[in-house]
Amino acid sequence: MQDYSIAVVGGDGIGPEVVAEGLKVLEAATSASGAKFSTTDYDLGARRWHATGETLPDSVLEELRGHDAILLGAIGDPSVPSGVLERGVLLPIRFALDHFVNLRPAKLFPGVASPLDVARVAPDGIDFVVVREGTEGPYVGNGGSLRTGTPNEIATEVSVNTRFGVERVVRDAFARAQARPRQHLTLVHKHNVLTHAGHLWRRTVEEVAAEFPEVETAYQHVDAATIFMATDPGRFDVIVTDNLFGDIITDIAAAIAGGIGLAASGNINPARTTPSMFEPVHGSAPDIAGQGKADPTAAVLSVAMLLSHLGLVDAAGRVEAAVAADLAERGDAVRSTAQVGDAIAARL
Amino acid sequence: MQDYSIAVVGGDGIGPEVVAEGLKVLEAATSASGAKFSTTDYDLGARRWHATGETLPDSVLEELRGHDAILLGAIGDPSVPSGVLERGVLLPIRFALDHFVNLRPAKLFPGVASPLDVARVAPDGIDFVVVREGTEGPYVGNGGSLRTGTPNEIATEVSVNTRFGVERVVRDAFARAQARPRQHLTLVHKHNVLTHAGHLWRRTVEEVAAEFPEVETAYQHVDAATIFMATDPGRFDVIVTDNLFGDIITDIAAAIAGGIGLAASGNINPARTTPSMFEPVHGSAPDIAGQGKADPTAAVLSVAMLLSHLGLVDAAGRVEAAVAADLAERGDAVRSTAQVGDAIAARL
Ligand SMILES: CC(C)[C@H](C(=O)O)[C@@H](O)C(=O)O
Ligand SMILES: CC(C)[C@H](C(=O)O)[C@@H](O)C(=O)O
Repeated sequence: MQDYSIAVVGGDGIGPEVVAEGLKVLEAATSASGAKFSTTDYDLGARRWHATGETLPDSVLEELRGHDAILLGAIGDPSVPSGVLERGVLLPIRFALDHFVNLRPAKLFPGVASPLDVARVAPDGIDFVVVREGTEGPYVGNGGSLRTGTPNEIATEVSVNTRFGVERVVRDAFARAQARPRQHLTLVHKHNVLTHAGHLWRRTVEEVAAEFPEVETAYQHVDAATIFMATDPGRFDVIVTDNLFGDIITDIAAAIAGGIGLAASGNINPARTTPSMFEPVHGSAPDIAGQGKADPTAAVLSVAMLLSHLGLVDAAGRVEAAVAADLAERGDAVRSTAQVGDAIAARL
Repeated sequence: MQDYSIAVVGGDGIGPEVVAEGLKVLEAATSASGAKFSTTDYDLGARRWHATGETLPDSVLEELRGHDAILLGAIGDPSVPSGVLERGVLLPIRFALDHFVNLRPAKLFPGVASPLDVARVAPDGIDFVVVREGTEGPYVGNGGSLRTGTPNEIATEVSVNTRFGVERVVRDAFARAQARPRQHLTLVHKHNVLTHAGHLWRRTVEEVAAEFPEVETAYQHVDAATIFMATDPGRFDVIVTDNLFGDIITDIAAAIAGGIGLAASGNINPARTTPSMFEPVHGSAPDIAGQGKADPTAAVLSVAMLLSHLGLVDAAGRVEAAVAADLAERGDAVRSTAQVGDAIAARL
């Protein structure tokens, strides 16, 4: 029996709505087990920025560090200039808490419609996981512009990749591949053009592979990888890739695996020196915010990842099974955000 | 009646095979018109590199400049270290000849199978064109590594974007959108993370839009754009994007529009101060090279783009119609590279 403290960042748009359902399911999945969860809400996102001009105050970041895990809804709103919240709230949490493993499973659950002609292109189903690097690459904010707004403007963005940063995420991906039945790892990059970063990634995969002799490795350029997402997703088991390529391919992965409404993710610090953060892959969807229309399934599956990260593997499995059962019977029924949460919670 | 001189770079793998069929169709499409084509072969790619260590000698580049257009097969071979040929042959041609418009249509022809469940996700078909910037972005080769091969290695890649470079490609994309029935242009970028480059692109689109009041504009983050490629490709008409995002989304676009075996492209200098270059989007496919298995359709459609660029719009239209007719009747028949070329040529 243990007590866990969870930091909850509902954030913007549909974020608070879907997180509420996630917490409902968390409660239902763990109440009988004796594990106790206390939650603390943090007000981050557009509202705070408009009211105070603050994005992520140091004091809040310090408080976040004190929790066992973070559950996040979504960050981003059209009323705030592009990048302010993303680079002011979401990315600073990922970077400051050293979430170098951004884990994004793509699994087509039975009963879920894929935009693909699945019978033809994925007869054995879709079940892979992307290990996206979370603290380097083009996301470091190392760029600038000169003569901004003039005909002579030049704007740069620098992708920074270190052996330290690449090696630790590659090793994590190998360990995950080793633990899965197929034991297959694909590196996705673009080393024929981005030769410096690409060769660092490639060399690192080759070297770490020696520690995992059971794991078979493959390589795909990012452009080719997106083709295979559409034409042969069954070939993937574990993918490891950089921050930007991971951003792109996990959205297409979510699309083919039934939609962004189902895609969960974990921003994980495997060293566990800081709390990891779990969030749906989808954004804040301001167009449907406050209408009870958002599908909370991705948030619920993110809760399952959170439980699993905390070692509550049983509860995590039960949440996933409840989601699978709900999806199998979902059909075309139109249900509100809360109805979906209730239905999943009722199965627990 | 005019004479045209075409530089032919068959290149590596299946490149020479598919280019041969492209030239066969070029001949069939133009022989009756009185237009005369003379071709000059250039030996570039893996063979030359192995034999001489050369990639693209200055003298060859100078000769290429003397032609009216270039037809390229594919560059890249596993026997050559990754990046050597791509950054030694293909990209230097694009950059030196100022091919700032990399034009990549995505059109699902009748009779062609898409991996998508088209009836559900694209009931009105797929017909859009990507205007990919070709001379800037992360492709400039501005990167490096320090302490290479040690635990302290750091590798960078710099994306360089100028107002000059962005504005000219954006204006070209607007002009193309204006000339199409739907008059719609989508900017694809990631300006919430790559704020400096992203804001340059966004501001430029907003400003150039004033010159094209009929054209409606939209914006999608690159990750979201890949989702829509799978779930709602019909929303796209003209897309304008940077070099790397364009590389990625045109491969997924090719996949959903029937496969990389059908995707044509033009590397265009709209100022016409240098020859433009036409090439299939696919690579050299070394695994099937020399076996007569490659589909030459993308090369043939690239010839149609070449003809259109040279002003031979009639001939271009007839090639496209011949391809469409062939595709409509193609079914699952297994034909050799030459048989496909013959069949298309026979319709002209
Ligand atoms: C909101 C944005 C900064 C974020 C990212 O690019 O990482 C999102 O797209 C994601 O994938 O979590
Ligand atoms: C071969 C490679 C350098 C090239 C690119 O990245 O531009 C190719 O993928 C393409 O799309 O033409």
